Amino acid sequence: DFRSEEEQNVDLDVITREMASDVNPIRVVIDCTNSEEVTEYYEQWLSAGINIISPGRKGASGPLALYKRCTELQKENSVYWQYESSVASALPVITTIRDLIDTGDEIIELNGAVSGALAYAFSTFSDEVPFSEALGKAVAKGYTENDIREDLSGLDTARKVVVLARQVGLDVDVKDVEVESLIPEEIAKKQYEGGKEQMDAALLEDLKCLDEPMLQRYQDAKADGLSLRYKFTIDRESGKCSASLAKVSNKEPLFRLKKNENLVEFVTRRYEESPMIIKGAAAGPELAATGIFADLLRVTRALSAQN
Amino acid sequence: DFRSEEEQNVDLDVITREMASDVNPIRVVIDCTNSEEVTEYYEQWLSAGINIISPGRKGASGPLALYKRCTELQKENSVYWQYESSVASALPVITTIRDLIDTGDEIIELNGAVSGALAYAFSTFSDEVPFSEALGKAVAKGYTENDIREDLSGLDTARKVVVLARQVGLDVDVKDVEVESLIPEEIAKKQYEGGKEQMDAALLEDLKCLDEPMLQRYQDAKADGLSLRYKFTIDRESGKCSASLAKVSNKEPLFRLKKNENLVEFVTRRYEESPMIIKGAAAGPELAATGIFADLLRVTRALSAQN
Repeated sequence: DFRSEEEQNVDLDVITREMASDVNPIRVVIDCTNSEEVTEYYEQWLSAGINIISPGRKGASGPLALYKRCTELQKENSVYWQYESSVASALPVITTIRDLIDTGDEIIELNGAVSGALAYAFSTFSDEVPFSEALGKAVAKGYTENDIREDLSGLDTARKVVVLARQVGLDVDVKDVEVESLIPEEIAKKQYEGGKEQMDAALLEDLKCLDEPMLQRYQDAKADGLSLRYKFTIDRESGKCSASLAKVSNKEPLFRLKKNENLVEFVTRRYEESPMIIKGAAAGPELAATGIFADLLRVTRALSAQN
Repeated sequence: DFRSEEEQNVDLDVITREMASDVNPIRVVIDCTNSEEVTEYYEQWLSAGINIISPGRKGASGPLALYKRCTELQKENSVYWQYESSVASALPVITTIRDLIDTGDEIIELNGAVSGALAYAFSTFSDEVPFSEALGKAVAKGYTENDIREDLSGLDTARKVVVLARQVGLDVDVKDVEVESLIPEEIAKKQYEGGKEQMDAALLEDLKCLDEPMLQRYQDAKADGLSLRYKFTIDRESGKCSASLAKVSNKEPLFRLKKNENLVEFVTRRYEESPMIIKGAAAGPELAATGIFADLLRVTRALSAQN
């Protein structure tokens, strides 16, 4: 457990009681923990009229029953649970899906790439830069999850896919997303000791085992004029959700994905021939903070109109 | 004057009096006329607590004084004037600019292409398809303004540029946008007689004079591996706004613009290295209706929370 003593001592029951008894009609919890324990309080908070903003994904991609109850509680209590920044950081992806559906459009497919860490790794590594070195740079820039294995195993992408799939009406859980893991099982399960820096260093050392096979895949793709991108697809009709390392051609928008960019392509009844595309930088603390702030403005705008 | 007698007989004073005396607290005018005369009523309507949705651009790109008074009246009367669909149809461009600015970002440059008609013409015409024939197809598909000369003269793009430039805080009018007109002065000024179909036919006949010079520009660009796109740029710092037929390379997102697509690239402090891009289909009656409906939902959501 890497948290400091101070962090561990937060008593959510005390906080919840204090917030519930607050006379201030506008109360917002911004849950930056990305912890499942905290999401267990969401129902209590929403029931007590407390708004929630979740940059993390543990709530919106958590157990389907929890997600559905929270969605219901929002309506019953005229309270907001916003999590725009849980996918693609500050890019307006969830808002756009909602606007499309609210105006009567029908989503056919969503696809693209929503891992800033993997986008960075796959646009940085090359014949000269080993894959593990590119990963190290992504860690140094703050583009990865706390445990980089969440990015590499596809779990981080799977969670984002679940958040998006639920917006289009699919009742899916993380286990329903077919993902390609980029790391061997033994590394995925290995216990690392020490603080975050020590753990990252040890892990990056172990991940050098990926350098050779990844270089092979990179060169195979390059020989055909293709790029490697970690791509997700949500097919609305079949309900199939997946994510894997794909070889993409020059014709696909993902081909030009660079740095820490995310890209979501919306194929809908209205945008079937010319899909709507939202693309841009989407990882790192500054953009996460922007996304949280945008959610907070949405909540306060809506609530200050009410009160 | 092509309007039917019935259309001409609408008395806006009568309508305004009736709306102003209505006890219904939520009143919305959706102004689909794209007529300057109608925008002269905007101040009265906003002052009377009537919300306005403008898919046309005559208000938001109209005289700066009118625009500023309407913007002030919105705040004073807690009433909404929405015109998201006036630029890039249903794509969420204006909403995104506002969210960026509201969350403390700073726009450096906006650029892209916002004429669905010209996007269609320049992605359809080729060695085999003359420019005037491509224009004829754009007219048939409903992608053009009522008078296609508004697209070709750059006026339609200039108006959209003004709408966007004002969102980023520039005090500009249509005359301040440096535009390249694609039609000769004599065609721009010519009076055409008859109904819309006759007028379009006569105009398209005259526009055959563009086929040869356009083919030349097309072939020049193609020889260098470039595409022709009608591109706009808004430079926040210098305040310079312009639109012209540009040769764009494979490296630019506009290179892949096709059909009736629009594309806006947001270069901001946060999105400086990896600009945010919103792209997709953006012309024709169905998408315009979607954009209007999305604005209506925004207004009704905000107002039903208040009342």
